[in-house]
Amino acid sequence: MPTLHILTSDADKYAHLIEDAHLPGLKITIKLEDCDIILGEPKLIREALPLLSTPKWIQSIYAGVETLMDTSLRRDYALTNARGVFGELMSEYVFGYLLAHEKKIFARLQAQQANQWDRFESGWLRGKTLGLLGVGSIGSHLADIAKAFGMKVWGYTRKSETSKQVDKYFHGEELLTFAEGLDYLVVVLPRTRDTNKIVDTNLLNALPSYAILINVGRGNAVDESALVEALRQGKIAGAILDVTEKEPLPENHPFWTTPNLLLTFHTSAISYPEDIVKLFIENYHLYLEGKPLKYQVDFERGY
Amino acid sequence: MPTLHILTSDADKYAHLIEDAHLPGLKITIKLEDCDIILGEPKLIREALPLLSTPKWIQSIYAGVETLMDTSLRRDYALTNARGVFGELMSEYVFGYLLAHEKKIFARLQAQQANQWDRFESGWLRGKTLGLLGVGSIGSHLADIAKAFGMKVWGYTRKSETSKQVDKYFHGEELLTFAEGLDYLVVVLPRTRDTNKIVDTNLLNALPSYAILINVGRGNAVDESALVEALRQGKIAGAILDVTEKEPLPENHPFWTTPNLLLTFHTSAISYPEDIVKLFIENYHLYLEGKPLKYQVDFERGY
Repeated sequence: MPTLHILTSDADKYAHLIEDAHLPGLKITIKLEDCDIILGEPKLIREALPLLSTPKWIQSIYAGVETLMDTSLRRDYALTNARGVFGELMSEYVFGYLLAHEKKIFARLQAQQANQWDRFESGWLRGKTLGLLGVGSIGSHLADIAKAFGMKVWGYTRKSETSKQVDKYFHGEELLTFAEGLDYLVVVLPRTRDTNKIVDTNLLNALPSYAILINVGRGNAVDESALVEALRQGKIAGAILDVTEKEPLPENHPFWTTPNLLLTFHTSAISYPEDIVKLFIENYHLYLEGKPLKYQVDFERGY
Repeated sequence: MPTLHILTSDADKYAHLIEDAHLPGLKITIKLEDCDIILGEPKLIREALPLLSTPKWIQSIYAGVETLMDTSLRRDYALTNARGVFGELMSEYVFGYLLAHEKKIFARLQAQQANQWDRFESGWLRGKTLGLLGVGSIGSHLADIAKAFGMKVWGYTRKSETSKQVDKYFHGEELLTFAEGLDYLVVVLPRTRDTNKIVDTNLLNALPSYAILINVGRGNAVDESALVEALRQGKIAGAILDVTEKEPLPENHPFWTTPNLLLTFHTSAISYPEDIVKLFIENYHLYLEGKPLKYQVDFERGY
C-alpha cells in the first residue's frame, strides 16, 4: 500500500483534498521516514531527502525545483514538478501588465487626479510581436492568448517547437535576431546553468527602444546591473519583474527606484492546492500502473 | 460616376487611403452639395445634411450616430455606421482594466514606492462571469477574449442571440436576474431612448458587492447619481467609465473623486482611418452592385 507524506505549509488543505479523492490504496502518513511518495515544497523536500529510506516518487507543488538539482543531493527517486497549471494565471498577469502599459492606465489615473479630461491616445497589442524566451506549458498558454488579441508570436527555445501558436521559432545563435523583432519579451525560463544572465547587455541592446521586458521565470535569467543601465539610458521602454535574483529584494537594491521598472514580488502565479491535487491524482494513477509520470524532471537538464 | 465628399478633421488621410484603393468609378469631390456619398463624423454630417441635394449613402466613421437620429433631420439616405472595427481595441481596454483590478496593479505600485516586498494575493478572471449589456460586434469580440481567459459569459439583449460564445442570454424582465450572477458588467449599448439610465439603482443593487462595472458604450446608459451612491456605499467594488453623460466631464462633477471610480476620457477605441476605409471599400462595392449595405442604421431603432 503506497504511503504519502505531505510536506507543505498548508498540509491540512492538501490532505483533505486528497482524502476526498479516495485514491485506491493510498495511505496518508505523518511518518516521513518510510513513505513512498512525497508531495511538497522543494525547500522542505530538500531538508527531508536525507531522512527518507526509499522514496519512489516526489511531486513538487511548485514549478521551480532548482533547489533539488544540487549534485550533492540524492537522485534515486522520480521527481515531478507542477506544470500545466500556471499558464492561465501567468497569462492574466502578463497581459494585465502589457495592457496597463499600452492603455496608459497609470497616466490616466494621474490625469483624473489632476482633474484633467486628457484624451492622449492608447497603444494596442493587435499586430504587435510577443517574444517568448522559453516555450513550455506557460509559454504555450501565453501564445494562445496573444493570438486571441491578434498578435504575432515568436519563440526562442533550446530546440523544442511544441506550440503551434508560435509563428516563428529561434534557436542557438539566433537570440539577438529574435530580440530585434520584438515589441515585448517575456522570460519564462527555469533556473538552470544555461539560463544564467541570458538577458544581458547584448540582448537588451538588441531589443527595440519601445520594447517591454517581463520576467515571470526566475531572477537568475536577468543581468540586473545591465537592466538598470538599459532602463536608465532608455534602451528599452520598461520592465516588469515578478522575480529577482534575491527574494525578497534587498532594501537598498536599485530596482526599487529604477525608472519604468515595476516589481510584483513573485505573485504572478501561486500554487492553488485544487490545481496541484488534480495533477497529483493524475500522476498517482500513472504511478500505480507503473507508467511514466507526467512532468518528470530531468536531473541533468535541470527542469 | 459616384462622387464622394469627406467630412472629417483628417480628410487628407482618408482621401489618400481611398485614392490608393482605386475604387472603380469613384470621384472624390470637394463640393459638398452635389455629392452622392459622404464619409465623415456624425456631428459634421448633421450640419451638412440640409445642404445636400440628393445624398444616397452616408458612412459614419464612428459607431455612435445618435446625433443623426433626431426626428427633425432628413432620412432620405442610407446611413451606415462603423462596426466590426472596434472589437479588438475595446477588448484590449476592457481586459486591461479588469486585469488591472484583479492583479491589484495600482496597489503593487504603491508597495514598490513604499519599498515593501508585499506578497498580497492577486485575484483572477478564470471561472468568473462576464456580463455583456448589449451583444453586437464589440460584445461578441469581448466574449471571444473572455472565453480565451476561461471565463463564463452572459449576455443581456433585446432579443438577438448572435454570439455563440455567450453561455446564457437574458432578455426583457430578466435584467436583475442577469445582474445578480455577474462578477463584471460591461455596458456596450448605443445611445437610444431604450438605453437611458438602464444602469440605475435597482441594477446596481442587484450586482454583487464585488462586481466591477465598465461602460464603453454611451454615458446615457448610467444613472450617474445612482452610481456615485453605489460606489460610496460599497454596493459594487468599482467602476471604469470611458463615457459620461457630458463630455468633457464638467470640472465639478462628483465622478472625478468618487471612490473606486476610474475615468478614461472616451479613449477606449478610436477610429483609425485604415480600419474605416476598409469598411468603406467593402460597402462601396455593395453600393455599386445595388446590394444592401453593411451595418445600415435603422432610424426607428436608433442604431
